[in-house]
Amino acid sequence: MSVRQKQSVLGILGGGQLARMLAIAAAPLGVRTLVVDSAGDACAGQVAPLCQADWTDFVALEKFAAEVDVVTFDFENVPADTAHWLAERVAVFPNPRALAVAQDRLAEKNLFRECGLQTPAFEAVDTREDLSRALAKIGAPSILKTRRLGYDGKGQFRIKQLADADAAWEALGANAHGLILEAFVPFERELSVLAVRTRAGDFRVWPLTQNWHTDGVLSLSLAPAPNVGELQSHAEALARTLAEHLDYVGVFALELFVKDGQLLGNEMAPRVHNSGHWTIEGAITSQFENHVRAVLGLPLGDTSARGFSTMFNWIGELPDAAPVLNTVDGHWHDYGKQSRPGRKVGHATVCAQDTKTLAARVGEIARGLQREEQAAPGIRALSS
Amino acid sequence: MSVRQKQSVLGILGGGQLARMLAIAAAPLGVRTLVVDSAGDACAGQVAPLCQADWTDFVALEKFAAEVDVVTFDFENVPADTAHWLAERVAVFPNPRALAVAQDRLAEKNLFRECGLQTPAFEAVDTREDLSRALAKIGAPSILKTRRLGYDGKGQFRIKQLADADAAWEALGANAHGLILEAFVPFERELSVLAVRTRAGDFRVWPLTQNWHTDGVLSLSLAPAPNVGELQSHAEALARTLAEHLDYVGVFALELFVKDGQLLGNEMAPRVHNSGHWTIEGAITSQFENHVRAVLGLPLGDTSARGFSTMFNWIGELPDAAPVLNTVDGHWHDYGKQSRPGRKVGHATVCAQDTKTLAARVGEIARGLQREEQAAPGIRALSS
Ligand SMILES: Nc1ncnc2c1ncn2[C@@H]1O[C@H](COP(=O)(O)OP(=O)(O)OP(=O)(O)O)[C@@H](O)[C@H]1O
Ligand SMILES: Nc1ncnc2c1ncn2[C@@H]1O[C@H](COP(=O)(O)OP(=O)(O)OP(=O)(O)O)[C@@H](O)[C@H]1O
Ligand SMILES: [Mg+2]
Ligand SMILES: [Mg+2]
Repeated sequence: MSVRQKQSVLGILGGGQLARMLAIAAAPLGVRTLVVDSAGDACAGQVAPLCQADWTDFVALEKFAAEVDVVTFDFENVPADTAHWLAERVAVFPNPRALAVAQDRLAEKNLFRECGLQTPAFEAVDTREDLSRALAKIGAPSILKTRRLGYDGKGQFRIKQLADADAAWEALGANAHGLILEAFVPFERELSVLAVRTRAGDFRVWPLTQNWHTDGVLSLSLAPAPNVGELQSHAEALARTLAEHLDYVGVFALELFVKDGQLLGNEMAPRVHNSGHWTIEGAITSQFENHVRAVLGLPLGDTSARGFSTMFNWIGELPDAAPVLNTVDGHWHDYGKQSRPGRKVGHATVCAQDTKTLAARVGEIARGLQREEQAAPGIRALSS
Repeated sequence: MSVRQKQSVLGILGGGQLARMLAIAAAPLGVRTLVVDSAGDACAGQVAPLCQADWTDFVALEKFAAEVDVVTFDFENVPADTAHWLAERVAVFPNPRALAVAQDRLAEKNLFRECGLQTPAFEAVDTREDLSRALAKIGAPSILKTRRLGYDGKGQFRIKQLADADAAWEALGANAHGLILEAFVPFERELSVLAVRTRAGDFRVWPLTQNWHTDGVLSLSLAPAPNVGELQSHAEALARTLAEHLDYVGVFALELFVKDGQLLGNEMAPRVHNSGHWTIEGAITSQFENHVRAVLGLPLGDTSARGFSTMFNWIGELPDAAPVLNTVDGHWHDYGKQSRPGRKVGHATVCAQDTKTLAARVGEIARGLQREEQAAPGIRALSS
């Protein structure tokens, strides 16, 4: 009888809900997880060992690196220095260069264009004069964004008319990492493509997801996005080009606008992504499992959808679970976090074999929770 | 903004793979898990906090009881005294009486008959004379079993001819808890029904599962069991009667023989069960999630199957994962245990929308692992 091989250990930088769902997906694969977070009560620590340390605590990180086989990210804003330092000691996926590109909206959009993915018009902005020049080119409405460290719509200012320039500068001008001005795109809809690439270069995408945001935060997703036609193969080809260009390993998401039927690149998330949470129940293999498989060097699982899925995001606090638990194929996800305004504290996914049944189930949950407004765009899209 | 409610804590007695899969199912429901096991390296401790203590360490159990909201079992042979003692301090589901019945093959079979479920002929055996008398009634082939503490075919002696009586007595006669002699049933097939009942009395069953054992240990399961006709509703009615009789709360399994097209009761497992592992991917709601929902007082999830599933049990050591990971809708489950002869160390489930595709996938895995023999009865049943 051969001796049971030592289990692999996956290190995750950041201990939020993404790390938590990665750890839950890793366990059945025989992969142990070790999480690093500066908060001792980070929610991934409920399902995996947690090492409490800052990104710059290289004594703690040295120990961490010695205990894990592969390092990956729950949090894309881990300092580039930390990522590079770790990569000298242990396998880090995605690689620090890919991470660095995705951390910078300017580098990211330049790369998109290089890879053939159009973007909203944009201009780098470092000074008040840059902003005036950029506004003269791009006009209003437009959005001023910090190049780095933005998430959930934070670090953005919407310029409705040119006279808002001073207010925008006031709000964001002090940002040390520079800014970017983007044309506001009156998009027809928002899609995202989740993709995964292995260390051996195998590449797969899940079906496109349609997303709706409220106040810059994801509110509802629907997958597979209805009536996408050739956009699926376009998105797949673009995601593959990007991934190969960056020698990307693991799951990533491309957030896309559809304008005049064409794809525009908004941003790239170098990690598992909120718009892919439906894959836990709605796909043959979830984004979390395939990320673990990819970074550990295991073969990928099938990315087909099982039927149709809608995901509700729970922001700030959890609603009552009962309407979801009582709905057929309704699945509850409590991240074990404290309530806090604007915080992602959970989500729910509901699935069905056909769009009509799904619309009925989404409606049932929405009525039960008095969340008709949140569900409405999804129900409309399912009926179109 | 309302304050986030404190999360519920589920205490589990026993920290094996069942506790591990319960903990993984509990997390998304917002339920934390605390496991008790006498082994510090019990595999559930990789995904949940573990309290190392013996069943008779009432100092440790007192602390445990104070930290949890509900107690349940991974291990059905927790001493009745311990279960009762805990039930005086905290909600325990299933209740200690139900546990006690399921711990004793004699009490269990008497209850089956009371509830209208036929059983193989059986006789209680406490002395060598009892054995002779029982053999005179039941004849050979028959099986002498310990009434208590048997699992995975352990504590059993197969009496092929009457002359084996001395050897059987030699092997098991010293057992302090008494024995039972059962007629050996030349069954057509083995089925199990997984059922769940809530604190409020809601009751559901999953589709019947067909099982094959090797050396008394589950080797392969197929669900839904093909061509069961009315057996599904018979099994459901019997399981419901039993559950109501015992005021059972949580998931349990009834292991059944089919003889002359009729159901015979073999035994009852007062917990989630190996033959229900396919429900993780193959049912709308898994046995693990519904057990957590039931004992916590949450509404039950739908127990329908998603298509067809086959589960391979891995005994002793894990085979190569690649053939499973490379098969569409193939799912790997490594329990994180050390290899040891006869030990359940993992399983794999493969699913498909139709039986023909499933047979092909099962065949692909079996060839990849050179496990044709293990898969053969499943493939035969899928093609019939
Ligand atoms: N140029 C734009 N034109 C129109 N809408 C935009 C534009 N940029 C952002 N938005 C809207 O705001 C949302 C959030 O923007 P963005 O993705 O840049 O922010 P973020 O802080 O990275 O958010 P998240 O972390 O949720 O992805 C977008 O999904 C889109 O709905
Ligand atoms: N009376 C019987 N007639 C025929 N086969 C039997 C009989 N009793 C047991 N077996 C066979 O042996 C297997 C294991 O027996 P049983 O369920 O009593 O043992 P166990 O130790 O409780 O095993 P497990 O924990 O795997 O359920 C049965 O599933 C069946 O295949
Ligand atoms: Mg975004
Ligand atoms: Mg049995």
